[in-house]
Amino acid sequence: MARTQGSHSDITGPRIRTEALRLFAQHGYAAVSMRQIASAVGVQAGALYNYTPDKQSLLFSLMEGHMTELLAAWHEQEAAYTAEASDPEAKVLARLEAFTRFHIRFHLERPDAVFIAYMELRNLSEDNFTAIESLRREYENALQAILKEGVRLGVLHVPDPKIATLAVIAMLNGVMTWYRSGGRLSLEEVEGIYWDMVKKSMQV
Amino acid sequence: MARTQGSHSDITGPRIRTEALRLFAQHGYAAVSMRQIASAVGVQAGALYNYTPDKQSLLFSLMEGHMTELLAAWHEQEAAYTAEASDPEAKVLARLEAFTRFHIRFHLERPDAVFIAYMELRNLSEDNFTAIESLRREYENALQAILKEGVRLGVLHVPDPKIATLAVIAMLNGVMTWYRSGGRLSLEEVEGIYWDMVKKSMQV
Repeated sequence: MARTQGSHSDITGPRIRTEALRLFAQHGYAAVSMRQIASAVGVQAGALYNYTPDKQSLLFSLMEGHMTELLAAWHEQEAAYTAEASDPEAKVLARLEAFTRFHIRFHLERPDAVFIAYMELRNLSEDNFTAIESLRREYENALQAILKEGVRLGVLHVPDPKIATLAVIAMLNGVMTWYRSGGRLSLEEVEGIYWDMVKKSMQV
Repeated sequence: MARTQGSHSDITGPRIRTEALRLFAQHGYAAVSMRQIASAVGVQAGALYNYTPDKQSLLFSLMEGHMTELLAAWHEQEAAYTAEASDPEAKVLARLEAFTRFHIRFHLERPDAVFIAYMELRNLSEDNFTAIESLRREYENALQAILKEGVRLGVLHVPDPKIATLAVIAMLNGVMTWYRSGGRLSLEEVEGIYWDMVKKSMQV
């Protein structure tokens, strides 16, 4: 019995997360009730509380999951790119290119999670907001470290690495608002256009 | 009497818009009721319906007002800059610089309207969405025309003017998420950093 119950909640958890994400993205966190989420999953509202203590915890868990997944995926990607480049100058440019392409691809694959990560910050409790902001800063710092290294090596000209980091991330996030697969440009072409702009914007 | 009533609604209209904007930005359109807006203005809910037929019309009117104000302000700004530059090459770069600085300043002065312009698109009816999208495209086309002219004159290198337009606007919009007046950098310095990046990203 314990085994069956375990399996059951293993399946229900991801489904709760999927439906909550979809509903929050569609209607906004404030407009969605736990009852609506339960109904979309096909369980009683009470069953939801076996999984999460309240709607705020669910929102936080979704946003935290998104950010930790992002960080883990980036560290893996960066390591792969760094291994290939030969000298420090080529390495830092390879990392910048990797970041540009990775950021676009990772976020395009998760439109609902991205939407919520930005839109629902205002609905986080103070502690939860601080925790998410700290994860977001960790990700921004990963790019900022690349820019600083590029400046140190003399291959990038970046008067203010902090601002340039925010500018690049905002620019790349913009792709989410218009890109549709099967459109005029392939993902590869889009990545190429953005990489060209990012690289040139920091040219020595 | 007619005169007094006219004056009264002249004052109430802007106050309804101000409070609705603030409440929509703070809690999200879906979570705010007409009753709450009326209460914030200090009138009965019924009085709101003298001003607007429903909440959807109010949202649309706020977003449409923001976009038409943006377009009018830009055309005025562009004309002023264009008058100063001497040759076509200088003129097109002056327009690009004007757009960069104007976009940052205009939007920083209106955080609630900007927030709503992006966040509440999903809550517009289909017709209203189409109307707002068409105004937004008009604004994007203003920048795209500058990029195309720059390419034609050989002073800008922009492989895809449409994508570059969206990339630049997204990058500039990013300022709204972090800039606080009285912080480390003045608005003038921030504009300068972004203009440097925009210009270089399109360098021949």
